[in-house]
Formats: sequence, structure tokens, C-alpha cells
Amino acid sequence: MTLLDENRLFPSEPNARAVARRLYTNVRDLPIISPHGHAEPRWFAEDEPFPDPAQLFVVPDHYISRMLYSRGISLEQLGVGSTPLEDPRRIWRIFAENYYLFRGTPTRLWLDFAFQELFGLDTRLKPLNADAYYDAIMDKLKAPGFRPRALFERFRIEVLATTDSPLDSLPYHETVRRSAFKGRIIPTFRPDPVVDPDFPNFVENLGSLGQMTHADTASWQGYLSALRQRRMEFKALGCTATDHGHPTAATADLGVDSAALLYQKIASGAGDQAERELFRAQMLTEMAAMSLDDGLVMQIHPGSFRNHNARLFERFGRDVGADIPMPTNYVQALHPLLKRFGNEAGLTLIVFTLDESTYSRELAPLAGHYPCLRLGPAWWFHDSPEGMMRFREYTTETAGFYNTVGFNDDTRAFLSIPARHDVARRVDCSFLARLVVEHRIDEDEAGEIASELAYELARKAYRL
Amino acid sequence: MTLLDENRLFPSEPNARAVARRLYTNVRDLPIISPHGHAEPRWFAEDEPFPDPAQLFVVPDHYISRMLYSRGISLEQLGVGSTPLEDPRRIWRIFAENYYLFRGTPTRLWLDFAFQELFGLDTRLKPLNADAYYDAIMDKLKAPGFRPRALFERFRIEVLATTDSPLDSLPYHETVRRSAFKGRIIPTFRPDPVVDPDFPNFVENLGSLGQMTHADTASWQGYLSALRQRRMEFKALGCTATDHGHPTAATADLGVDSAALLYQKIASGAGDQAERELFRAQMLTEMAAMSLDDGLVMQIHPGSFRNHNARLFERFGRDVGADIPMPTNYVQALHPLLKRFGNEAGLTLIVFTLDESTYSRELAPLAGHYPCLRLGPAWWFHDSPEGMMRFREYTTETAGFYNTVGFNDDTRAFLSIPARHDVARRVDCSFLARLVVEHRIDEDEAGEIASELAYELARKAYRL
Amino acid sequence: MTLLDENRLFPSEPNARAVARRLYTNVRDLPIISPHGHAEPRWFAEDEPFPDPAQLFVVPDHYISRMLYSRGISLEQLGVGSTPLEDPRRIWRIFAENYYLFRGTPTRLWLDFAFQELFGLDTRLKPLNADAYYDAIMDKLKAPGFRPRALFERFRIEVLATTDSPLDSLPYHETVRRSAFKGRIIPTFRPDPVVDPDFPNFVENLGSLGQMTHADTASWQGYLSALRQRRMEFKALGCTATDHGHPTAATADLGVDSAALLYQKIASGAGDQAERELFRAQMLTEMAAMSLDDGLVMQIHPGSFRNHNARLFERFGRDVGADIPMPTNYVQALHPLLKRFGNEAGLTLIVFTLDESTYSRELAPLAGHYPCLRLGPAWWFHDSPEGMMRFREYTTETAGFYNTVGFNDDTRAFLSIPARHDVARRVDCSFLARLVVEHRIDEDEAGEIASELAYELARKAYRL
Repeated sequence: MTLLDENRLFPSEPNARAVARRLYTNVRDLPIISPHGHAEPRWFAEDEPFPDPAQLFVVPDHYISRMLYSRGISLEQLGVGSTPLEDPRRIWRIFAENYYLFRGTPTRLWLDFAFQELFGLDTRLKPLNADAYYDAIMDKLKAPGFRPRALFERFRIEVLATTDSPLDSLPYHETVRRSAFKGRIIPTFRPDPVVDPDFPNFVENLGSLGQMTHADTASWQGYLSALRQRRMEFKALGCTATDHGHPTAATADLGVDSAALLYQKIASGAGDQAERELFRAQMLTEMAAMSLDDGLVMQIHPGSFRNHNARLFERFGRDVGADIPMPTNYVQALHPLLKRFGNEAGLTLIVFTLDESTYSRELAPLAGHYPCLRLGPAWWFHDSPEGMMRFREYTTETAGFYNTVGFNDDTRAFLSIPARHDVARRVDCSFLARLVVEHRIDEDEAGEIASELAYELARKAYRL
Repeated sequence: MTLLDENRLFPSEPNARAVARRLYTNVRDLPIISPHGHAEPRWFAEDEPFPDPAQLFVVPDHYISRMLYSRGISLEQLGVGSTPLEDPRRIWRIFAENYYLFRGTPTRLWLDFAFQELFGLDTRLKPLNADAYYDAIMDKLKAPGFRPRALFERFRIEVLATTDSPLDSLPYHETVRRSAFKGRIIPTFRPDPVVDPDFPNFVENLGSLGQMTHADTASWQGYLSALRQRRMEFKALGCTATDHGHPTAATADLGVDSAALLYQKIASGAGDQAERELFRAQMLTEMAAMSLDDGLVMQIHPGSFRNHNARLFERFGRDVGADIPMPTNYVQALHPLLKRFGNEAGLTLIVFTLDESTYSRELAPLAGHYPCLRLGPAWWFHDSPEGMMRFREYTTETAGFYNTVGFNDDTRAFLSIPARHDVARRVDCSFLARLVVEHRIDEDEAGEIASELAYELARKAYRL
Repeated sequence: MTLLDENRLFPSEPNARAVARRLYTNVRDLPIISPHGHAEPRWFAEDEPFPDPAQLFVVPDHYISRMLYSRGISLEQLGVGSTPLEDPRRIWRIFAENYYLFRGTPTRLWLDFAFQELFGLDTRLKPLNADAYYDAIMDKLKAPGFRPRALFERFRIEVLATTDSPLDSLPYHETVRRSAFKGRIIPTFRPDPVVDPDFPNFVENLGSLGQMTHADTASWQGYLSALRQRRMEFKALGCTATDHGHPTAATADLGVDSAALLYQKIASGAGDQAERELFRAQMLTEMAAMSLDDGLVMQIHPGSFRNHNARLFERFGRDVGADIPMPTNYVQALHPLLKRFGNEAGLTLIVFTLDESTYSRELAPLAGHYPCLRLGPAWWFHDSPEGMMRFREYTTETAGFYNTVGFNDDTRAFLSIPARHDVARRVDCSFLARLVVEHRIDEDEAGEIASELAYELARKAYRL
């Protein structure tokens, strides 16, 4: 009995499967580049054991809490918002009772991978074995080999980028660098708290930014200079990229006087919805200008309606799974930024989408033309076998493979990192295998591409 | 020679086909739950024989008349709008001459199923055998076994829901209930004629509603109370669900005074386009409130541009096939209703779409989060092998299987009911078989899911 | 060693592959109908040898220059805009060094086809054999069999339509007709320069149109009459179709006075953006009216954001690859035109899209209903194995095969014509093979359809 078949995710047709398997065998053990995600640097600074299976797998994973919540289980029952957990075993039992809900989802694949590969479990999680699972995992978690730093090495992670606020002084990253631990854990500059006027406490955040940098953030130039300074400070800790999570992909290119005027309004907490959107738009272009100067790679993750469920947001705050994708336009939205910087090969702008209808219509044609543009991998709801396969099917013919940037695991669940990279490698090898058996590329080429997709493209695109 | 291969719609790869076939064998003979459709209750009240093949298959089926019309055959030639038909055999011959147009469409699958399974025909319909077909079908239609009630039982239909106006006093449903016939035929409350200000004769309809219920539909409270009363009367005849066919999925949540004021304007036949849309939006939220009270499951079928072909609408009226899907937004549109009721596990709101780009972008994320939401199956133009497969491929990874509600045949063509359920069961088993051979779920799980999709999920979601 | 496998693009599952191959064998050698494209009539009038491999394959093909540009190679390096080329061999070497970028793209398939089938090359192009490739191609290009007319015959082209401005007096078409060459090369009436107010030099173009036709294009009636006259003159040279490349699919149906008034404004170079859009919209309806009179088939290619890259447009002008698709609406946009002419079986209106989300949502339902409508094949970025397969998968179940019009190669690269038709025939046969092995149609039917898709539908739809 086993949870994972060695041929999982490969095509069932024997010729295609054989090719996929050969391709996969050559990339399976490549190191992991994790250039975008939400691991916590604290884990590696403190290197404490993970407390229990519920806290490790269930509570912080919004893929899991979403699905359980959709079937009538409250977030309170799942311990969301409670530290420490009152009764982690009870939460684990609820999870086990409802594990069947994840059939056909990537969550199931990621979890089974961790259960089998890390914890040596080999029968499907179900109510009857919930306690045995709990105890087995609990037992392992106490071992030194299951501490964050040991797992980092066991996972063969070559570099792991976290995602951090400009207001974070990055003490954990400092600690890691000064420690004996050799893992490369670097921050990513995500300035939403100080560039998005709709971010909670935006005006206060500008004040904090001024304090941190001794810059006059009451003025447009002082504000820009504070941002420049924080970028350099992030860079000093290994940062190679920025990230921007705006509601839309809108960009703008205002004259300096208009921009300054707009900033005065925005920084005072005024500005209507259109002005706040215009400010975000302008800031993407400002960030691109800074990236040309300091070499940080720029990522845009647009198109999410944040905190759609008002009641949950009030009770639990951000990031509890009530974000919903929206239709997103890129052609008009990115035009102002691309008009100014699109032809700069020195800029790398990686664009993501939650709107799959833009893959072939907008994103592949844009990335297949502009020197600065690259396509981020299938993101979030689409970071799944079907979703990743569609990403390749819809983008490759126009953008090719080399305008994409490999895989991002983008996860808050540390233990899912190897599982997610394994799924991505298997799906890419399956796609390539189809091209080979349909004689659209040769197998030697597919082998090169598989290795680029699994390792090289991410390393190069993120300048690691 | 045979019209139907026993392996139709299964994947051609032998391993996947074998799995699909095993799964299908176990669900093939499950009873049919038909929780949403457009069968006429009169058929079962009167139990008269169907008059002739043209009247049975061609004239009322807008899938057929659309395709023939698109190739230059007038609706007059097809007898649409004529009762009784002048020359049904002539219509049948036209149909046979053009049967090749349906190659690759689901209509072809549904018809061949009826031809072979019900009428024992085994060669493809073509001009040369048109008369033989006609005579063979005509002959059978005279037999008692081909009357509506007998077919209902032969089809193993456990429950059949019709779709009915609140202005319909449901005499046929009454007759069926009082008859010796044991078939469970229940109404569905579809209030468009009295909640959509653009419905033909809307203002008069409000008057009729007042007369039926002895309520003062000139006032907002009287109007709501009339609707509540009709819902209870539908419920008394077995109704478990409502249905709403608005042009968009817009919802609103006005204060009671604003709502009353808006109603005054709308009920007088005034109100501009935005106000009429706002009224429909408000009424969806009102209906959700009533559903929480009386337990009726709520369905929304939005996104159709009704009667796009003005000339045909003038000559033949509604429902002759000139409805065309439109881009549809759900994230913003459903927000007001979900803000109020989204977290209520006691509400069941089943959402359908004609815009497949919303499956992975909006609907699966919404249904995979909100306790009240479920996804209706692939609808109308997408109720086809490719369309149903895409539904699974685009929704399962985020919403899972258990936030979907099984199959709706949604048909006006009674004889297509078993064919449509058979297609749905085969396609679902083929999707599941792929997950099995790609080792994403195990075969025992696939078997459970197949049975849920074919029978249990519909029964549970519609509270049958 | 060979560049092309004889089973390329067929499904890998052996049963499906065998069916695909049988179907393909019967259509492989059918003549080519090329009813829409951008070949230059001058080639056939002058019948000069193509100058060199760079000028033949690289410089004019914006699929190639786009991809190379996206990876940081300047258009100057590629000789775009230079006549004659300074150093074609250097351009060829750059191309060979970057040939790997085209892995997985249709460009690779088209080029390998030309390399092997026309030039007898059988190893993959790479830096090491760049010069040998160059010399081998150069050598062949000098032979009489590689002149345009000889290739036209070798390619078995039955008819080739070019795309031409109404301001073009068509001298090359005249020359071809008067020559001994029997190839049927006909113009297509593409009036954008005189119906799109945003076209470069629009107002001057109206003056030129007046001069050419001796009509008073300062008046609405004179303008319409000038257009009618040019259509007749195109028709006299074999033209059977018009083509319209508007930014959107918007149509309008103004009264004659409003239209005349709008024209006065537009023709004077005035008119804001909405009025210019309204004028284009009105002109589509006017063109449909003229088509009903003179029998020219009407094509609409909407939805491209032209010259998205302002810097390249300024330096190199139109058609250098910086056009990007936009979301496109058809349901509301085409409504005014369809309201007036949609039921006319005497009109043929072929609609294309760059927005694949409209296939199943809008275009198939519209074409599956309106007698005048046909669906053009997968266009431009979607004219690729995955793109063509999606076209069939998303449109067939609602529109059938017979509301589509076969294949368009739509190319500026003459040598890619047979390759593109070969890809289309293979993909269609693969789609049909899947329907056969899944028992959705029979193989004899698939054979008929394959032949219609490869040859008959284009001939009939374009009235050739």
C-alpha cells in the first residue's frame, strides 16, 4: 500500500508516460529554487520544532480552511485565530473526517506527499486512522531532523525568498545570516503597505516609513527616496526582487508635478477611489524606474478581490481565504509602464494572473514581444495539475518556454514546498512528453527544457 | 449495425477506458433525479400519446431548430408556431436531409440514443430511410408503453421538477398528485414574470399576482407577502426550489425604505434601465431571505441575452432559440447577497453560468469558500461532452466535487432525459477515470464520487 | 534523420493515431484554397527569385522577429526596415543561434516543413550548421523551380487571395491575369484606410478615393458610391470578399441623415473617439448592405490593439509585431448589424476572434443561429496546434462543422503556406479521430468532414 504512485500525474498512454518518466527522472533531484512564497523567516531564525499536526498542516493553510469552511465547518472549530490551540487533536479529527472533500484537488496531492515522504505514512488519512496519524506525526516532529533548518536542507532548497513589508526591519533574516545555518533565505520587497492607499493603516505606515529611513515622507521626493533606501537595505540582505499585489494591473506615467500633487492628496488620507487607483498605478511605474536603477526584479500579482467575505475579515483579518479572483485586463493596464520601459532589456517584469482567459489573449502575446516581460507560473487557484497544464497549453505557442520563469511554490505551508515542486516538475514533463510523442519537439530538446523549467529559468529570471 | 457503441464517450486509451467502464457500470442504472428542466406537467396529467415524430423530436427542440435555421431553413418550414402541424412527414424529411449538420454535437448523441434505445432503430438517420424512421416511430407512439407516464417509469425517473410561473395555479401538478400515477412530478418556483420588470406584461402580472393571493401588490410589503404565499403554495405541491433567469447575476441589499420606494416606481411601469436592473438585483436578495425562512433551494441562471433575433421574437415569441450568452460577472455581482447571507449554511444557492471563463476564475473560488454556494452543472450550450468535461477540469481543483450538485437535464424534450443523464454519467466517469490512471485519486474513491455525481448530490442539494 | 515525423501532430494513443492517419491520407493532397492572407501580388507579377534565406524567412515574418525581439535582439540586428540587407548571412546566424526559442511554437513546425520539404534539409537548424543551411537554401533559390510562380504550382494552390487597399489600383493583379501564368490570384477588398478614421492619413485617403473614382467623397452618398465602385473594380479582378480589421466588432445602424451628418464630421478630420468608433460601426453595416447587393463575402477581424509598442511603431511603422489582442464582445457589438441583416441567407459574414473566451460563449451560439454568420478559423496567435484544437473543441458542439469555413493561412510568409495547411489538416484529422474513437461520429462521416474542412468549406464560403 502506498499513498503515491511513482507514475502519478504522467499521461496514461504508455509511450507518453515512458517519455514523461525519463524526463522527470533527470529533473527530480535538482535543487529547489523558491523565488516567491510566504514562508516565515522566523522559522529558520528560531529553528523551533513545529508544535503539532494541526498547527503544522491545518490551521495556517487557507486552501484547507477554505474547503472546510465551504462545507459548513467554522474557522473557530479549526482553531484559526487561536494561539495556542486548545485541542489540536480535535482539529485533526475534523480534518480527517473531511479529508474526502479534497479528492481531485492539489491539496490532496501535497498532503499525501508530505504524509508519505516525510512521515512514512502509507494509508489514506480517514477518520479511523486519524489518531494514529496524529501520533505518528507528533512523534516525528520532536526529532531534530524535523526542525525547520534540517527540513530546509533535506528538501534541497538552494534559495528561499520570503515576502516582506518595507516596514519590517527583517530581524529574522539578519539572525539567519549571522547564524551557522548555511541556508540562503532572502527577503522580497513587497511595498503594498506603503504604496496601496487602501491598505490598512496606510497613512500611519507612511509615517513609520519616514521614521525608519529618516526621510521626509510628507513630500513626494522624500517618499520616493525612503522607498529607494529600503530597497537597498533589503538588497543588502540578499533581496533580488520586489512584489506588488494590486487589485488591478493598472499602471500610469504621470508627469512629476502631477505625481507629487497626487501624492500630497493620497498621503493625507484623502483621494477618491479613482485617485487611489491612479496612485497605485503610478507607483508601479515608479517601482519599475527604481528597478532599472537597482536591478531588483519586479513581480506583479494583480486581480484579487481581497477579503470578499466581510464577516470573516472583521473577525479574522486578512489572508483567511476569502480572496476571490476578478477579470483582469493587461493590454491597456500595462500600456503606460510598457510605453516607458517595455523596451528595456535591463528590466525584468514578471506578471502573474488569476484570470486564465488572459493567458493566450494578452499575456503570451505581451511576453512574446516586450523584452522586459516574463510570465510568472500558474498562480494560486491555478497552481494545480490542470491549471499548470493549461498554463503551458495556452502560453507556449506564443511566448515559448523561455519567456516563462519556472515554478513558484508561493506557499505558507513549509512542508508543501517539495510536494509542490514535484507536482510542477511532473506536469511540465507530461506536457513536454506530449510534445515529444506528437513529434513537435525531439526528446533531447525536451530534456533541456525540463531542466530549464525545473531550475535554470527561475535562477536566471530572479537573478539568483 | 448499431447507432451507439457501448464504449462511447470513454477515453480511447485502454487503461483509462477500462476504469471508466467499470465506474460507469455501477452508476448506469441508478434512478434519475431531474431537479431542473422544462418538461410540461400537462403531459403527465393528460397522459396522451405524443402525436408524431416531428412534433416529438423536431418542432419543440430549439437545439434542432437553431441549427437548421442557421443553415437557411425557415422556422415556418419546420412547423414552429403551427398547431397542429400541416404535414409532419415533410418536416421529418427536411430533418433527415439535414441530420448530418448535427455531427459532433450533443443533439446527435441524444437523438441516436432515443432512436436506438426507445425505438429500436439501428441505422443512422438519412434521407433514404427518413420515411422508414417516421413510420417506425409513429407505430411505436401508438403503443401504451410510449405514453408519458409509462415512459416516466421506464426511464426510472425518481423525481422530475418542472419550471413554473407564480401565476400558474398548477392545475396539472394537482391532477398528477390526485391521479393513480405514482411519479413524483414537482413544480419549481420561477418568479421572473413578477420580479423582472422587463418581462412581457410585468405590470399586469403584478395585478394577477395580487388577485391570486388576495394581497395588495401595490405596496412593497403586500407584494413580498404575495410572493411568500405563492412559494408556500408551490411547496404544498412538492416544490423544493426556486429559479431565477436574470440577464445578469447582479444582487443588491437596499434598506427597506429604499426598496419600497424603488418598488413603487417599478410597479407603476416606470423606472429606467438601471432601476429595473437594481430591482431585479434587490429581488434576488429578497428571495434569498425567503429561502432562509421556507427552505426552498435557490437557483440563479444568469447571463443570457434573451431574444437576440428581433425578427424571430416578433414572429414566434420567446424561447425559439435566439438567446445568446453574454460575459457574466459573479464576484462583484453576488457580493451584496453574499455579504448578507453568504455565511448561512442553511441557505443553498446554486449558481449556473453560460460564461465558461468564470469557472476557474470566479465560480469555483466562490463555491469553494462560501457555505451557501453550490455550482450548478454545465448549462445549456455547455451541456455537452466537451462542455461537461471542461466544467470538471476547471472547477474540481478549487471547489472539489462536493460543492457541485450532480446533473440537470434542463430539457424541453422529454425523450432526451435518459440520453442526457447517460451522457453526463459517461463523461463524469471518463473524467474520474483519468484521475485514477494518473494516480490522483484511487479507484474506490472514484466509485463513490461517480455515484454521488450521478444521484446523491442532486438529491441532497435540492432537498429531495 | 529527419525533421518531420510522418505522424506528427497525431494523437499518441495508437487507435486514435491510426484513425487520424487514415483521415489525413485522404486529404493530404487536396488542392490548397487560400482565401485570406497577405501574400504580395508583386511576387507573382514579377516572378523574381527570392533574394536570400534571411529575406525569405526571417525579416518579413513577424512571428519570428517578435520572439527574437522579446529576448533582447533588436529589429535593426534582424534587418527589419533595411532594403537591401547589408549582411543577410549575419542575420541568418543570429536566427540559427536562437532557433531553440521556437521550441513548442508553430513557427518551428512551419519552418522545419519548409526546410525539409522544399530544401531537402534533414538536421535541426543550429549554430553549427547555420552556414551550411544558408548555402543550401541560397543555392536552391537560384533554381527556376523556386521562383514564386513555380512554387505556387508546386504547392497545388488552387486560389490565393491577397488583401488590398481600395486605394491600390491592383496593377500586379492585372499583370498576373494578363500573363501566361494560370495561377488564380485574386484581391480582397480591405477598406480600412478609407473607413477607419484612425488609419494613418485617413482624410487624405478619402481625397485619393474620390480621385480614383471621380466621385464626390466630400458627401456621404458620393463616398458610398465611390466604395461601391471600387468593390466592383475589385470584383472584376476576381475578388469575392471584403475584410475589415477594426479594433472592436461594434456595428451600428443609423438613419441615413444621422449617418450623413456623422460622415461630414469624420471626413473633415473632426470627431472624438466615440464618434470615430461609431463611424467604423456604421460602416460595417453599410458594407453588409453592399455585400447583399454585389455578393462579396464579408470578413471581420476585430480585437487587436494595433501598434502597442509606440517606440517600434515610430521607428518601423505598422505590422512589425506589436499588435496585442484585447477582450472582444460580439453579442452586443454585432446586434445592430444582425438586427438588420442577420436573417439574410444571401449574406455571408465570417467572423474571427483573438479572444478565445468568446468561442463557446458568443461566437458558436451566434453562428449556430444566424443564417448569415460563419466562424472564421483560429486566427493569428491561435493558428497553432493547441489553438486550432481548442477552436474545434469550443465551437463544434454548438455551431457544428458546417458553420465554419475551413482554413485560412493568413500569412505574409509565402513558403509557410503548405506547412500551415498541412498543420491544419493534421489537427482537424486528430480532432475527428478523437470523435471517432470515442464513438461520437463514425469514420465514414469523419472522412467526409475532413475533406470539407480541408477544401470544400472554404471554396463554398468564399464563393470561389
